[in-house]
Amino acid sequence: MKLFSFWRSLATFRVRIALNFKGIKPEVVNVDLVKGHQRNLEFQKINPQMLLPALIDGDGPIIFQSLAILEYLDEVHPQPPLLPFNPRDRARVRGLAGIIACDAHPLIVPRVRDYLEREFKLNEEQRLNWIRYWIGEALQAVEVHLSGENETGRYCHGDSVTIADLCLASHVVGAKLFEMSVAPYPTVERIFDLCMKQDAFALAHPLKQPGAPKSVAH
Amino acid sequence: MKLFSFWRSLATFRVRIALNFKGIKPEVVNVDLVKGHQRNLEFQKINPQMLLPALIDGDGPIIFQSLAILEYLDEVHPQPPLLPFNPRDRARVRGLAGIIACDAHPLIVPRVRDYLEREFKLNEEQRLNWIRYWIGEALQAVEVHLSGENETGRYCHGDSVTIADLCLASHVVGAKLFEMSVAPYPTVERIFDLCMKQDAFALAHPLKQPGAPKSVAH
Repeated sequence: MKLFSFWRSLATFRVRIALNFKGIKPEVVNVDLVKGHQRNLEFQKINPQMLLPALIDGDGPIIFQSLAILEYLDEVHPQPPLLPFNPRDRARVRGLAGIIACDAHPLIVPRVRDYLEREFKLNEEQRLNWIRYWIGEALQAVEVHLSGENETGRYCHGDSVTIADLCLASHVVGAKLFEMSVAPYPTVERIFDLCMKQDAFALAHPLKQPGAPKSVAH
Repeated sequence: MKLFSFWRSLATFRVRIALNFKGIKPEVVNVDLVKGHQRNLEFQKINPQMLLPALIDGDGPIIFQSLAILEYLDEVHPQPPLLPFNPRDRARVRGLAGIIACDAHPLIVPRVRDYLEREFKLNEEQRLNWIRYWIGEALQAVEVHLSGENETGRYCHGDSVTIADLCLASHVVGAKLFEMSVAPYPTVERIFDLCMKQDAFALAHPLKQPGAPKSVAH
């Protein structure tokens, strides 16, 4: 298995956690998003969307989009599971994941920040306000779900790690990279702290990857 | 089954197609997004994220996020299927769906357009440029996949309708609502035209829903 990865990509962070969790050690190919290597022709042929993560299992073809990769990994390596068994439970896990991975994260990625700067001439403060606003919106929505619903356990859904926890962890790490406190979201914070005590999460952390700086100035 | 819907919501359009396709006739509850009824306390209790679609099956709880709802419907009403059987095929379908439903659509929804107007004082032309740019980015990425990959058939993946086609249809209808031509994306256009010949798609069209105008000025 070959994972196209970059230390800073939060969507790839989710996939790294899943791979660790399943005990899979892929070959890691670094695609430097800061240097724009995702736009190289060679990588465009691998992923036309020029985004990370991308995964090749065996002879391919490429598997793209982090949620699709997570579902794939859970289907071909079902143990330990990252989704519950019951359709209603699965729907809640996927819904929580979607609040983060669909409705928040795509608004704060480099290509969007580049557009805001290039086309609207927004300065860094305005772009940071944008990023923090959308991160906060998702934190708030997830907190209301987690704090108010009986299905919440030690983790987002019951007492086992699911795809929702992978997304929550990537989102909180993103919040911290942008110097946001998650203290206003105590259930999110509690679950994040529990997740990060596990090797599968901790070893996948952006700042633990090849090429990462010791700390981050956005 | 109870579907919280609004004629203009493209994410709800996807769910309406799936329900038609499965032959399910839910009770439809209209939530007027133009009048801001999604922010009413009553609806906040149903969906804390204050977004459509939301679905209640039986006693609940609420099922939220369109992709999670589509997966749920396919799990509890598996015939006719909206996902292929093989994990690699499922991954491609989910990946194509994600390009649209995760990486494009969340950038053009009303709450984002409201932010651009309120916080950045962007005028309508700038906001339309924003919307059209992100719709176009996804159309282009999907076209490259569809036109270059052997798995593409009469539909996005083989000769059966999948979740990818539901997302493609909602995205093209969105493009048309914003007066974009999809002629530069011939495979997308071909599949869209084939989809819209089917009742499951045609009857779910935004302009066919209660409260919809005969035509749209954005």
